[in-house]
Amino acid sequence: MAVNAERFLADLHKLRQFGAAGVGKGVVRPAYSKADIEARAWLSDKMAEAGLTSRMDPVGNLFGLAEGRSILLGSHSDSQPEGGWLDGALGVIGALEVARSSDRPVSVVSFQDEEGRFGVTTGSAIWAGQVSLEEADRLTDHTGVAFGEARQAVSHLAGDFVDPTSFSGFIEMHIEQGPTLDTAEEQIGVVTDIVGIRDMRITFNGRQNHAGTTPMHLRRDAFQALAAFSAEIETRFRNLVTPRTVWTIGHVSLHPNASSIVTGRAVFSMQWRDGDSDRLARMEEIIRLTAQEIAASRGLTVEFGKMLGLEPVAMDRRLANALATSAEKVSPGRWRRMPSGALHDATNVARIMPVSMLFVPSIGGISHAFDEDTDEADLVAGLHVLEDAVSAIG
Amino acid sequence: MAVNAERFLADLHKLRQFGAAGVGKGVVRPAYSKADIEARAWLSDKMAEAGLTSRMDPVGNLFGLAEGRSILLGSHSDSQPEGGWLDGALGVIGALEVARSSDRPVSVVSFQDEEGRFGVTTGSAIWAGQVSLEEADRLTDHTGVAFGEARQAVSHLAGDFVDPTSFSGFIEMHIEQGPTLDTAEEQIGVVTDIVGIRDMRITFNGRQNHAGTTPMHLRRDAFQALAAFSAEIETRFRNLVTPRTVWTIGHVSLHPNASSIVTGRAVFSMQWRDGDSDRLARMEEIIRLTAQEIAASRGLTVEFGKMLGLEPVAMDRRLANALATSAEKVSPGRWRRMPSGALHDATNVARIMPVSMLFVPSIGGISHAFDEDTDEADLVAGLHVLEDAVSAIG
Repeated sequence: MAVNAERFLADLHKLRQFGAAGVGKGVVRPAYSKADIEARAWLSDKMAEAGLTSRMDPVGNLFGLAEGRSILLGSHSDSQPEGGWLDGALGVIGALEVARSSDRPVSVVSFQDEEGRFGVTTGSAIWAGQVSLEEADRLTDHTGVAFGEARQAVSHLAGDFVDPTSFSGFIEMHIEQGPTLDTAEEQIGVVTDIVGIRDMRITFNGRQNHAGTTPMHLRRDAFQALAAFSAEIETRFRNLVTPRTVWTIGHVSLHPNASSIVTGRAVFSMQWRDGDSDRLARMEEIIRLTAQEIAASRGLTVEFGKMLGLEPVAMDRRLANALATSAEKVSPGRWRRMPSGALHDATNVARIMPVSMLFVPSIGGISHAFDEDTDEADLVAGLHVLEDAVSAIG
Repeated sequence: MAVNAERFLADLHKLRQFGAAGVGKGVVRPAYSKADIEARAWLSDKMAEAGLTSRMDPVGNLFGLAEGRSILLGSHSDSQPEGGWLDGALGVIGALEVARSSDRPVSVVSFQDEEGRFGVTTGSAIWAGQVSLEEADRLTDHTGVAFGEARQAVSHLAGDFVDPTSFSGFIEMHIEQGPTLDTAEEQIGVVTDIVGIRDMRITFNGRQNHAGTTPMHLRRDAFQALAAFSAEIETRFRNLVTPRTVWTIGHVSLHPNASSIVTGRAVFSMQWRDGDSDRLARMEEIIRLTAQEIAASRGLTVEFGKMLGLEPVAMDRRLANALATSAEKVSPGRWRRMPSGALHDATNVARIMPVSMLFVPSIGGISHAFDEDTDEADLVAGLHVLEDAVSAIG
């Protein structure tokens, strides 16, 4: 029995109704919100209709279990605080459609809090043993609510954790969340690896001063140091990075942050991502050296916070090759192998079983925003690749 | 009768007791605080002891009036939320000491809210007709209290506004609040002009994106635009500015300000100061052009907010020359003529009478902080210059 593209699209639009908000196809469905819990109840019913045994674990990860050993498909159904309709949802509804139409045993999962209200990919991290439940329970969201408290919202629905050894592997279909496929007018990305991330808080300490009476040559302006650092690392990275390497200063906090005062302290986030651990390490050396040199030459000091590090994760070769073969069947010449620049639940699941991912395009590369979207033809192409690969893996 | 340096220093320390706080000689005495009102009551008694007629106006400006036509000396006795013991206080107590020892008719003033709890140099701005009382009454502090409400705290002490035409001129002694005199080991600055200020809010609008999936060459990162702007104006200003020109990016607000998101919008303050209106205008041209070019080359847009402009104010030549002659007598070879990079009450008073200012050093250039300080020898030198100039002006 083949997948039903219309039913698949209709269910995607139904899932969107839980938390529909903002403009266009926007969704507000963060982990443990009313919309999230109602969406999981609806998904649970859909799983049962598909002949799967629905099970929610203690943190809200929702499984639809086939009998015996099965391949696990899925993603997450929680959203960003201002999210789109496909981020996560696509992988869950695609999994559901393949499960209900495939002759093979296919299980489905919607992980909880992939979007990091509390941590990063919280639900799958706990399930895969990356973070203990005790540690996770102490995580808080930005309003101070603890994870251990928030997850009580699903305690009446929750059973035990699902045993991962009953799955032969995991495939996650997801939107690319970047512009590569859309720009190239391609339909499918077969993920080679999920890039590693380094994230570090850096502080420049200068001297807070009066912006009228302090001559430029006597200033120790922490914002100017930050601006110079940003320009300098761009130059120094040039001979090291590849076109897929990225780095971002996304968070900046100045003190005292007043127009008439020379900035005494600048705290900022430095994040960089690449598929190669060695390159990540060499970038770290450049970052530290550049910040130290800029601080020293301008009479400031620099402090480096604790570095968050997530290693690159290679996808399973056999599963990726099956996806590649299916992609060439479904979209001949309109697919590529590519790294994932974003983290996904697959990063955690790769610790405990063979994992692979496929991408469909994001229009304009837009994600984590109400106007995130993908052509329906591309969504359906992704569904067919997933179906064909599952059938081939056997 | 000569000034009494010990009595002058003793009174400075007494005034410091009203609101003494923080470390060292720190003071917390913002406008209309209990400490501020008590300090003004004490000052009023001191004025009466000096044979002056004490008068508080409806906004809390406190005058000690000599009989007939007189020269007005003074500054302000309110402080920053975390201030030093000399900012404003020096000019008030110096004025009191000269008034009580001079043979000439000398009046004294302590203006209210120079430090801008509500506006900027609020009390002197109202007295000099720069701002109407009706407008001022609608100003609010950062907690939402209106000026019109706050000034009721002195209504039981307040009489009419003082007629400015009874004064022949105004001299304000003040700490420099910058490092120039301290670095040069000089004692006195005779102010040539108070620099003009331009302050404008600028916004770069880029595209908010995922920091993992958006390749560097496709980003429209508003923070990177800001960093590039900061570096580029420094280069472009080089052939235009003087060593006394200053510019500051002191306030920065990024949206959404998250480490994993490419910044979609950067709002920042651009402030620049110089004694020459033409130079201020040419700097504005460079700022606008540079921001537009950087936005265009990176695929962003730029918006300019309303520009706040305060014109440079030249000091009265006759009064400044008298101060210069006295400075050379008191501190031969250890004084200079210099602009004031900070705003002062003198800026407003210059609208209605001849005005001049003299500076004494700030140790380390530090001001608007608890550790603001000046050597007592320099405070006394300032007092002697003020006394001598008043005597010479006649």
